[in-house]
Amino acid sequence: MSNYHPLTEQEAIGIARSVPGIFGPEGELSCREIGDGNLNLVFHISQASTGASLIVKQALPYAKVVGESWPLSLDRARIESEALILEERFAPGLVPKVYHSDNDMALTVMEDLSSHVIMRQGLIEGGVYPLFAEHISDFLARTLFFTSDLGMNQQEKKLLTRSFVNPDLCKITEDLIFDHPYTNADTNSFDSHLQADAERLWSDQELHFEVARLREKFLTQAQALLHGDLHTGSIFITEQSTKVIDPEFAYFGPIGFDIGAVFANLLLHYASQEHWSADEASRKARRQYLTDTIGDIWHGFERKFRELWNEHGTDRIARTAEYQDDYMLRLLQDAAGFAGAKAVRRIVGLAHVADIDKIPDADVRAKAQRLALTIGTTLIKRNRQLTSIEEIIHIADSASRA
Amino acid sequence: MSNYHPLTEQEAIGIARSVPGIFGPEGELSCREIGDGNLNLVFHISQASTGASLIVKQALPYAKVVGESWPLSLDRARIESEALILEERFAPGLVPKVYHSDNDMALTVMEDLSSHVIMRQGLIEGGVYPLFAEHISDFLARTLFFTSDLGMNQQEKKLLTRSFVNPDLCKITEDLIFDHPYTNADTNSFDSHLQADAERLWSDQELHFEVARLREKFLTQAQALLHGDLHTGSIFITEQSTKVIDPEFAYFGPIGFDIGAVFANLLLHYASQEHWSADEASRKARRQYLTDTIGDIWHGFERKFRELWNEHGTDRIARTAEYQDDYMLRLLQDAAGFAGAKAVRRIVGLAHVADIDKIPDADVRAKAQRLALTIGTTLIKRNRQLTSIEEIIHIADSASRA
Repeated sequence: MSNYHPLTEQEAIGIARSVPGIFGPEGELSCREIGDGNLNLVFHISQASTGASLIVKQALPYAKVVGESWPLSLDRARIESEALILEERFAPGLVPKVYHSDNDMALTVMEDLSSHVIMRQGLIEGGVYPLFAEHISDFLARTLFFTSDLGMNQQEKKLLTRSFVNPDLCKITEDLIFDHPYTNADTNSFDSHLQADAERLWSDQELHFEVARLREKFLTQAQALLHGDLHTGSIFITEQSTKVIDPEFAYFGPIGFDIGAVFANLLLHYASQEHWSADEASRKARRQYLTDTIGDIWHGFERKFRELWNEHGTDRIARTAEYQDDYMLRLLQDAAGFAGAKAVRRIVGLAHVADIDKIPDADVRAKAQRLALTIGTTLIKRNRQLTSIEEIIHIADSASRA
Repeated sequence: MSNYHPLTEQEAIGIARSVPGIFGPEGELSCREIGDGNLNLVFHISQASTGASLIVKQALPYAKVVGESWPLSLDRARIESEALILEERFAPGLVPKVYHSDNDMALTVMEDLSSHVIMRQGLIEGGVYPLFAEHISDFLARTLFFTSDLGMNQQEKKLLTRSFVNPDLCKITEDLIFDHPYTNADTNSFDSHLQADAERLWSDQELHFEVARLREKFLTQAQALLHGDLHTGSIFITEQSTKVIDPEFAYFGPIGFDIGAVFANLLLHYASQEHWSADEASRKARRQYLTDTIGDIWHGFERKFRELWNEHGTDRIARTAEYQDDYMLRLLQDAAGFAGAKAVRRIVGLAHVADIDKIPDADVRAKAQRLALTIGTTLIKRNRQLTSIEEIIHIADSASRA
């Protein structure tokens, strides 16, 4: 790592220039640093004369969150670029293309997706993405199947797990999702009107028991190579295109964790409709769109995962009668449980979501927050009893009518 | 690995001589190769003048089983020596001491345990080991607890899993325990009188379903660093001392797999009493001794594992009410399921056990084999319903009376 230093804009331009096949030989390159400065430098480099552009993303050796700074392994840049390359191989067209990477400098040069918007922002602005369920269920089914023991040679998979041992980033998840929200931790952050709600989370033994089981799965169950942080802020989108970005949390974990992350963020947006919808009818319609999307994602995922299994299954024993049904049911239950944990932490934990935090009126915000907590805790408590995606949707709709 | 070559006796003596603190400065060393020649060279090196001795064990780059030879990674020697060192650290006195290791030469120099006998042979000869349950439950509780997320820092554990990625040796288990016995595989080997019994195994869908679930756990559940091959041939024993050897199958897997291996081998010996006991009364007494030992191992393991958890638990969330009970119950169920799988494969799969194979009379042998198959398949099918070690013992006793 001795080579490592944060890039200047001029250095970023030099690296961009050296990538073959993107820019014309003549014509200035201009550079803008567009990262949020918390974890990474992100240089947008473009050539006015050709319209060509790309991104140079470089990891910083620390994370800044709410004013604090803690060291964070630069190895996450290697993990991100290797994960992007694998995801492109298994789910082509659904992640930014990687043009170049340099592990010593902790940087990845990749496709510019400026024509897309961050899905969280798009949803807040009322965006509708008719192809999203199709795209994300493709991404989930293909990346998760082909990196599991079902779709990859079991010995190759073991070697691959070694490249994706990711202690620093997993620790963030273990602390912020599977621990701190359930105790009076310093890192927690919530509106003061939620004090009693938070205290109920801290003392709810039934809830803690299920969180302990979900945490155990996150710690031990190396089912497939996860994205590991698949919220709507990690998705670039247009009406026609979906691109999953930022897999720096990638590691081999439980499949339901990625699926649950998508569900949780759609459900948080569902809860935020207390504010973003202008009236009851449009709120109802918007929520219907979101729950339809959740249903379409699960049904699409399930169908595609089963098709891949039947067509490309590498494991004779996994073709045993009933086993596939049992496996898919466990994925649904895991997805529900993890979705619940991800919803809860976005209300009382360290990192929130704009969908809810940007609601200006405190009473309306509180209503959205409590709805998210109800949906989240119900999903956690009931995850092992659920048998269909419709029950998950019913939990959200019942809570919103309560 | 360019340095690697199989040692001559003279080279083994030279390596032994260079280990400090074992041999006197004067006095010839003599060397005997005592390995079975299938997987490893094992040199016993001793000094008549002092009575001192040690073992030089070197991995061979292939495995020979029933005449066939296939390549096998020399990396298993590194895994074995690193596992022995960790086991000694967590469960002192229960494994041979490692004096020296050389990964390039795939060799480990370790304590000579010639004063002990291989437990399988000791049992066949009618041996009684009053401290075994105490020792092996110590070994299991301490090695498994301290390498799990319950007893080790979760980030350290992730780094350690990387050192114990063990695809070659895991593949042997995946094939020979969790696949081949349940289909008409070339590697299977069984007495012709078992043809119908084997065919029943190949077509039993209920059995296959549970085997698929156990296989999935073996492939994905990185609970703790396992020994990975803990049968009675991997245990050196006297009445006073127990030493667990040969952890070359070590990897991070489901805790119940190691516990189940011990149970399975005691149950196979239980089944073999059709021959080794002289009469009905002594058979009953011997079986009682074996099931008492199984009960003592489980109760000892459970008590010690819980004590370690309560005293040295590294995970706040794992102290959630009910979670420990739930976790221990799942370990018991896993142990039962894995014990069943290990019993079945020793009857119809590639590698058998002397306890049963050495029964000279075919009819008596068949009775023992069928008893082992009944116990094994019952444990597999019922593993997820079991709630106590007494039920496991009851399954064996009922089968033996049928």
